[in-house]
Amino acid sequence: MMRAHNFSSGPAAMPSEVLIQAQNELLSYDDSGMSIMEMSHRSKYYDQIHNETMELIRQLLGIPANYKIGLLQGGARLQFAMIPLNFMSKGRQAGYVLTDTWSEEAFKEAEHVGSAYIAGKNDGYRRIPDSNEIEIQRDTTYIHLTSNNTIVGTQYHDYPQLNGVHLIADMTSDIMSKEIDVNSFSLIYAGAQKNLGPSGVTLVILREDLLEEESSLTMPALRYSSHLKENCMLATPPTYNIYLVNLFAKWIQQQGGVAMIEKQNQKKATLLYDFIDQSGGFYKGYSERSSRSHMNITFHLPTKELDQKFIAQAYQEGFIGVNGHHRIGGCRASIYNGVSLQSCMELEMFMKHFQDQNG
Amino acid sequence: MMRAHNFSSGPAAMPSEVLIQAQNELLSYDDSGMSIMEMSHRSKYYDQIHNETMELIRQLLGIPANYKIGLLQGGARLQFAMIPLNFMSKGRQAGYVLTDTWSEEAFKEAEHVGSAYIAGKNDGYRRIPDSNEIEIQRDTTYIHLTSNNTIVGTQYHDYPQLNGVHLIADMTSDIMSKEIDVNSFSLIYAGAQKNLGPSGVTLVILREDLLEEESSLTMPALRYSSHLKENCMLATPPTYNIYLVNLFAKWIQQQGGVAMIEKQNQKKATLLYDFIDQSGGFYKGYSERSSRSHMNITFHLPTKELDQKFIAQAYQEGFIGVNGHHRIGGCRASIYNGVSLQSCMELEMFMKHFQDQNG
Repeated sequence: MMRAHNFSSGPAAMPSEVLIQAQNELLSYDDSGMSIMEMSHRSKYYDQIHNETMELIRQLLGIPANYKIGLLQGGARLQFAMIPLNFMSKGRQAGYVLTDTWSEEAFKEAEHVGSAYIAGKNDGYRRIPDSNEIEIQRDTTYIHLTSNNTIVGTQYHDYPQLNGVHLIADMTSDIMSKEIDVNSFSLIYAGAQKNLGPSGVTLVILREDLLEEESSLTMPALRYSSHLKENCMLATPPTYNIYLVNLFAKWIQQQGGVAMIEKQNQKKATLLYDFIDQSGGFYKGYSERSSRSHMNITFHLPTKELDQKFIAQAYQEGFIGVNGHHRIGGCRASIYNGVSLQSCMELEMFMKHFQDQNG
Repeated sequence: MMRAHNFSSGPAAMPSEVLIQAQNELLSYDDSGMSIMEMSHRSKYYDQIHNETMELIRQLLGIPANYKIGLLQGGARLQFAMIPLNFMSKGRQAGYVLTDTWSEEAFKEAEHVGSAYIAGKNDGYRRIPDSNEIEIQRDTTYIHLTSNNTIVGTQYHDYPQLNGVHLIADMTSDIMSKEIDVNSFSLIYAGAQKNLGPSGVTLVILREDLLEEESSLTMPALRYSSHLKENCMLATPPTYNIYLVNLFAKWIQQQGGVAMIEKQNQKKATLLYDFIDQSGGFYKGYSERSSRSHMNITFHLPTKELDQKFIAQAYQEGFIGVNGHHRIGGCRASIYNGVSLQSCMELEMFMKHFQDQNG
């Protein structure tokens, strides 16, 4: 079966091994005679998957014991709402570092709830603000940031130190792609659909002391504590999505863990950035070098017409999703965990060939 | 491949045809070289599935043009919160008809938001309140009810007429199992995981005039209007779950539509209830006859020991999920759309055999 070179910005490529195992087990998991998606979430089969998935994530990211792990629904969008609803208590503030659309959207939701302010921002979003550009106002409970920005192709390579203010990060587009020091964060959340599975499940990693800030006025369905108390079965969990995350996490483990995944991702990103930088200006990177994303390689060709020609020809040759986001135009290769080095090498060859023909 | 007789209360059995098609397409949908779950939700392939699924649901349930259709995340649980957050405006009330645990949970969430009251209730929950037992207090915006109750095994067979007050129904456990007159409702919501697909996607059917009641104070992520405006892509939709709903809806269409599904479900329910009623008291139905659910057949054997023996032996013989909910004990056969008449006939034979051995 021919598999495409899938550079989609998310939902994104999954390892073929994961899909093949899912395919083999689709009509009957183990000896059950049922698909995972047909099982009660209280069944012994699913229960084992549910708990094992959280344990695998704990091991892979080195999550300390004073952090809770949750698997929720609603995507990062619901987290945009839950975070201020739970943690923006009366008379307190929350700062949002704006690095692009998704951080702006998170900020807008918080503004509906209480006193949210912009803690840092660069015009044009081609660069991540430095630590010394972050302004923390008085009575701030938390600072929110977006670790990787899919549209412009920027990424934090160092996180700000906040001295006692809670740091909350949306890691939807780089969770599990590199090692992180979880201790720097009070809350990490991430939709799974880039580096860890399909859409429809959101990973939440929450330090216990943040739960003490939780507003008791928030209704149970929107509180972290009520979901965690029920082991994320307050609503029927998205069982099949979590099963796929389980397979994906095991695949990461088999690759040698997150450290090895990070090396591989660096290799993929370096390959493409080096090629862009050495193309004599035919391909031009969009974001500033110091803030370049290892997940989303954004670039432009000399003209808009060439951008379009490049995207169309790439599609013809089996490279999917290399169009840039409509807000900034140009091209983008998203090279999440599920995209192989081989796919990146073939894209580089195609880019070379395209330049030879059109340069 | 041996498939179990799956009587799980949800997530529940799916038609084998649906699973086989999903299996065939798992590594490459159509000629794409990608799994549905790997595709951008903005891709032409997924976009087509997304819109077609809503159109199929509209056709199957005969949903008039003045209703919007949404596919959201978070299960019925998130709807428990979104409904009062959006529609319980200041100085107005909402009435909840309590028929069991899930309606109680919906009521509890509403009490956090504003003035919610109990509009009807029967002790023990073995019977659905009659229309004349529903009390509508002044300044009521909506009445909420749960159409089918999985734990006790009761179901509305006629819905109350409310004369101008909005009727909102949680149909998580009987949506698509029978024909309904959508015009009687202002809002219908249903998790897909019983009769229409896997867990992780919630169907919402909403009459446009209800949207006028929506509170502008509610934050965008929790408002129906903002989700509908973005065609349910405000968050990245649970694409694979919606694809499975698409296949399930097509399967319903191939069976002859909801009218034929309803006939089949009646046949399944009648088979088992008749057998229970004619067992000379060995098997005893839990709910009152007038309110019996066609989805969840709840019954007890003469002793708790026999209940346990029945459940264990059934499991050995490939009948999965026939244990009752721990709150009421006993046994339960959930016979949603995905459970075949054949499975029900084999269960009946097993029940007969068990009675012969133990009666």
